[in-house]
Amino acid sequence: MKLSSAGELKLLEHIRKFFPVRAKNIITGIGDDAAVIKASDKSLLATTDMMIEGIHFDLDYVTPYQVGCKLVAVNVSDIYAMGGKPSFMLLGMAVDKNADMNFIDMFFSGIKDAMDYYSLSLVGGDVSASKNSIALSATVMGYAGKSILRSGARIGDRIYVTGSLGDSACGLEFLKRLGRPVPLRLKDKHSGEPACLRKMKMNLPWNKVGLLLRRHLLPEARSPVVHLQSATSMIDISDGLLLDLSRLCDESRVGAKIYLEKVPISAGLREVAIHLGLSPINLALSGGEDYELLFSAPAAKKVKAIYIGDILKSKRVIVDAKGKEKPFSAEGYQHFHE
Amino acid sequence: MKLSSAGELKLLEHIRKFFPVRAKNIITGIGDDAAVIKASDKSLLATTDMMIEGIHFDLDYVTPYQVGCKLVAVNVSDIYAMGGKPSFMLLGMAVDKNADMNFIDMFFSGIKDAMDYYSLSLVGGDVSASKNSIALSATVMGYAGKSILRSGARIGDRIYVTGSLGDSACGLEFLKRLGRPVPLRLKDKHSGEPACLRKMKMNLPWNKVGLLLRRHLLPEARSPVVHLQSATSMIDISDGLLLDLSRLCDESRVGAKIYLEKVPISAGLREVAIHLGLSPINLALSGGEDYELLFSAPAAKKVKAIYIGDILKSKRVIVDAKGKEKPFSAEGYQHFHE
Repeated sequence: MKLSSAGELKLLEHIRKFFPVRAKNIITGIGDDAAVIKASDKSLLATTDMMIEGIHFDLDYVTPYQVGCKLVAVNVSDIYAMGGKPSFMLLGMAVDKNADMNFIDMFFSGIKDAMDYYSLSLVGGDVSASKNSIALSATVMGYAGKSILRSGARIGDRIYVTGSLGDSACGLEFLKRLGRPVPLRLKDKHSGEPACLRKMKMNLPWNKVGLLLRRHLLPEARSPVVHLQSATSMIDISDGLLLDLSRLCDESRVGAKIYLEKVPISAGLREVAIHLGLSPINLALSGGEDYELLFSAPAAKKVKAIYIGDILKSKRVIVDAKGKEKPFSAEGYQHFHE
Repeated sequence: MKLSSAGELKLLEHIRKFFPVRAKNIITGIGDDAAVIKASDKSLLATTDMMIEGIHFDLDYVTPYQVGCKLVAVNVSDIYAMGGKPSFMLLGMAVDKNADMNFIDMFFSGIKDAMDYYSLSLVGGDVSASKNSIALSATVMGYAGKSILRSGARIGDRIYVTGSLGDSACGLEFLKRLGRPVPLRLKDKHSGEPACLRKMKMNLPWNKVGLLLRRHLLPEARSPVVHLQSATSMIDISDGLLLDLSRLCDESRVGAKIYLEKVPISAGLREVAIHLGLSPINLALSGGEDYELLFSAPAAKKVKAIYIGDILKSKRVIVDAKGKEKPFSAEGYQHFHE
């Protein structure tokens, strides 16, 4: 069935069925002019992100399910990066009136799986027709006792990340060369190699490729809970380590030194990147969409994350194993010869 | 200058300049991963609306300034319709990279004028490229002591609207026939007739036409403040009286009787609609985008609004001056012969 025959009102009914559960603190969710949420004694956090077909996603490479998952994850990641707990979501969706209801169902299935994963409640939204490409927007709201800003880094603080970098960018590159979607879902974490890949007879182990693809197609936002007591500043890595670190330094008015050999690179990235003719370290420094947290904490604090550098007064440099320094900026850096 | 040469970071800087003032309760606004707002002891309200070029607006008829104004007003209207006070806004904007910076400036000028008008603060957003048409989204948050839901209407309550209906639909019809934008702005309420219209030598007084155009191009959301003590249910009229009344009746599980001769029709609508060969009453009953509030209140309460009908147990009818009843539904009604 096409969206045009279902009609907007029927579609809203359909969507409401996907999201029947209401959290206790929601007075009114979907179905009134605005959502009403009980007062909280914590600070309110709010963020919004759009995803446009042909710009942020391409249905030649990703499934509608994965688009739905990612839309939730990128917004959750922004709330996490403030040290907050995401709770409520508003969804905006503009789709061509000739869109198939199967597409809409798959998209909402991804939205729902991701919202369950992060314990979010859908409290409202707006569904409309689009002219050509699909336009999506999500607003996620949450709460924080004490929020962690980008501006709190202090000279002498250490710089940490919560996981390996570059995996998502490498996964995207693999996908582009593959030229078709890989139907991974959030819940089947240990899925076998999809038939479409088995046929290709790659000389790459599926467990490593699958992990990189998953990091790109179904990114997971990282909870900041264990770092709330130690972090002085925080940002999520959406546009690459160097760009997002530059943003953090700009807001904190400080510099930074990154130790090249400390930047975490997964075994999978090392193997697959080289197979594709790409530099693992360049992907780790400049590749986007890993959604790991990048934060600073005083050197004296015990931190369960990966120490990759130090906050300096003003200079911004990368240091290699031999102690050689190269400057970096938001635009990138002069590549090291590997 | 084109957006592509300005770049995303420069654009964000540019936008921040438009919105320098911060309300006291905003801990962090634009420029971090998410906005941080101080806790409030009132219920939180949140709503989101998208506007897509070619679907919700057509730059052949409206100016970018007017698009900006309207995006704010429709979201504010949703918060008002819950009995709330709008306070914060998040903005999403996807524009073609070849968009002219003049367009962006005019659009933000409209956003800013409307936000000032309603005392809103911009606390965050997302700017990105679009594939073809412009996609806009806004999320407005606010607070309410006691929110007014659609579901609170009781049998015997009276039905009220806050102003004349059909003006916006008639304004749109006039615009379509004119086939070009009319550069009205929010601040010049008593502007003279634009040159483009003077040349047409219409047999219509500009003061009446201008009012209808303004109702469509620069709709004003109606504050519910004076009705908070009396209203039992409330909705804003975005899709037409009969459709929005049907929604209110559905949620309240009641019926309604509307007195045809009580439905407020402005002198301008009466004159201009007939000139265009349209039925004023049909526009008033089914024309959208007036953004007047529609609400119910007990008959015993004094209400400063226009009484147009009564809440019944289940039947939904329109009554004409002779007492003749005709049923209506969300889809419309069997037109009266005038």
